[in-house]
Amino acid sequence: MIVLFSDFGLEGPYVGQVQSRLLQCAPGVPVINLFADLAPYDVQAAACLLPAYSTGFPRGSVFLCVVDPGVGGVRHGVVVKADGRWYVGPNEGLFALLARRAARVECWQLPDPVGVSSSFHGRDVFAPVAALLATGATVDAEVVSVTCLAQPRWPDDVFRVVYIDRYGNAITGVRASKVGVTQSLRVNGRVLRAAGTFSDVAPGEAFWYENSNGLLEFAVNRGRAEDVLGVKVGSDFAIQADDRLVPIPPVS
Amino acid sequence: MIVLFSDFGLEGPYVGQVQSRLLQCAPGVPVINLFADLAPYDVQAAACLLPAYSTGFPRGSVFLCVVDPGVGGVRHGVVVKADGRWYVGPNEGLFALLARRAARVECWQLPDPVGVSSSFHGRDVFAPVAALLATGATVDAEVVSVTCLAQPRWPDDVFRVVYIDRYGNAITGVRASKVGVTQSLRVNGRVLRAAGTFSDVAPGEAFWYENSNGLLEFAVNRGRAEDVLGVKVGSDFAIQADDRLVPIPPVS
Amino acid sequence: MIVLFSDFGLEGPYVGQVQSRLLQCAPGVPVINLFADLAPYDVQAAACLLPAYSTGFPRGSVFLCVVDPGVGGVRHGVVVKADGRWYVGPNEGLFALLARRAARVECWQLPDPVGVSSSFHGRDVFAPVAALLATGATVDAEVVSVTCLAQPRWPDDVFRVVYIDRYGNAITGVRASKVGVTQSLRVNGRVLRAAGTFSDVAPGEAFWYENSNGLLEFAVNRGRAEDVLGVKVGSDFAIQADDRLVPIPPVS
Repeated sequence: MIVLFSDFGLEGPYVGQVQSRLLQCAPGVPVINLFADLAPYDVQAAACLLPAYSTGFPRGSVFLCVVDPGVGGVRHGVVVKADGRWYVGPNEGLFALLARRAARVECWQLPDPVGVSSSFHGRDVFAPVAALLATGATVDAEVVSVTCLAQPRWPDDVFRVVYIDRYGNAITGVRASKVGVTQSLRVNGRVLRAAGTFSDVAPGEAFWYENSNGLLEFAVNRGRAEDVLGVKVGSDFAIQADDRLVPIPPVS
Repeated sequence: MIVLFSDFGLEGPYVGQVQSRLLQCAPGVPVINLFADLAPYDVQAAACLLPAYSTGFPRGSVFLCVVDPGVGGVRHGVVVKADGRWYVGPNEGLFALLARRAARVECWQLPDPVGVSSSFHGRDVFAPVAALLATGATVDAEVVSVTCLAQPRWPDDVFRVVYIDRYGNAITGVRASKVGVTQSLRVNGRVLRAAGTFSDVAPGEAFWYENSNGLLEFAVNRGRAEDVLGVKVGSDFAIQADDRLVPIPPVS
Repeated sequence: MIVLFSDFGLEGPYVGQVQSRLLQCAPGVPVINLFADLAPYDVQAAACLLPAYSTGFPRGSVFLCVVDPGVGGVRHGVVVKADGRWYVGPNEGLFALLARRAARVECWQLPDPVGVSSSFHGRDVFAPVAALLATGATVDAEVVSVTCLAQPRWPDDVFRVVYIDRYGNAITGVRASKVGVTQSLRVNGRVLRAAGTFSDVAPGEAFWYENSNGLLEFAVNRGRAEDVLGVKVGSDFAIQADDRLVPIPPVS
């Protein structure tokens, strides 16, 4: 299957145009729209979500990944194969954390596109490549070292809010397994303790928990953590231990 | 076909994750996303919409229904077969009005889930069951009496706004056939008369009508009833007859 | 394939209900949701987008087009065949610019619908016709002259914003090829110059460019043109040459 992971927005024509291109190039291959509303241009936020939300998909799945502030500029397109899944998109950091965590990574660089739009490579460049990968056809790309993948100086876990869902839950760039369940977090001056799930706390109470994809998430039982905590995508936070604030790891 | 009926939101990964699970468990079965933006946690609103919006689907359709404020808690999952269609979801009242109105209802209780997330039973519990039902496979569930379905003390028709659509039309929990077309409604201090459809009234005029699924709906020709009437999901209203206000039926 | 082009909104049940009808009438035909969030009731804006966004689709594609302020009133439904693609929808001007630009146009009028809802012809009238067209079946419709298509007194290029996308880019009703790249535009008292794409200008800088479907679009590199320029759907603008403002073509 082909999985869309983008900041295109559900609104407007972009997802439909990409789906149409996929349908023409890879008829019969199912297309899943996993994320269409990643924070616009926020490559780091997308890079945190990609490994957490792609591991549930079967080997051989092809992820079409587009958060592309540099579209039309000098950045290259790449194909990444990580632990049996394929990823295609612009080389601006989106695959940085995925590559660090995967047991086995291979990488190819796409040739500079010719004769296509300079603003919609998702449709004109990456979708045709994803279709070729999904159908097992040969892709015109050059094997390159994994060190060619853009690697911004980000920590392995990013202590920022990276997505806010419809319920107002705030997903962070931290794997929950890296934080002990006895540890509290300091968020916007408030202290949050861990809970197993929503119904473990009183209605209206804020907590943090390991979400269903392994990321640390802020939530409020039958309420909106976004509003209760006053956070948005990009808000940072820290671990609080013994009333001592652990500094946030540097984010470059 | 499998029909999604949820408060997951179109935004974010949840619908895509459910679709991916369905695709893996029931390849080739079409999936229709009927409602993804039901009012969050509002089981009563969803319960009013479900019978009205599911009757148009063919017998054998499987509805994956998730408005689940009690996820991870003690509530059980259920399968309901009503008038030839299948429904699966949490037993918190979502199926209450459906069961009252159906000519023939059967009910099964799902076993407590083991080894799955405590916050996303839509993906981990109910989607696999829906896939089994859609493919005709056997589901591990216990036949129970219909009296096991949660039945909050709600009236048969709920005089509340239960959904506001993109045009600002306000869908209510009342079957239009239960209100005479000569009757007026009192909404936020305003009196609304019935009309057949939008073009029957002047631009900007508010009215009520029987919508295309049989529910009573407030609308404004080329305008937004939500704004003109100042209503939102949960707003109540009443029938007004001979300048005499008929009390709103009790809503528990 | 069948392509949806509507103001239904992604939210709510309408797209799902249309998809369900298509699935029942034309099983196996892929459905692409191109636009679901056209400006509500704004027939002119939709008419500007339709030719630009449908040319990328293969011949034989069927476009289900619904922006229908006159639903339930006296307007007729039509089928249009333009340059090998099919279009079905209400005859209120939506096909006006498409027909002017196409090399070859044919037109049919649908009979008045009987026994269907008066508010949801997208589902009850146009979807079944689109399904018939997509499967090559015979449609009950009368050949009429192309002059029967509603032709409001609009210019060939409409100097208005017709859509604002998720990034805040403002798509206009002007084909970029009709404006020289050396020409500047006056938008809300600001002067915009042309650029090739986003990365050609500094972050935060506003410009206009030819978007990936040939329309003139206002954009800001890593910013929101909607906010920077203070525009919305319906905002007008003009070409500025030698400090002399070229009048906006009349829009009826």
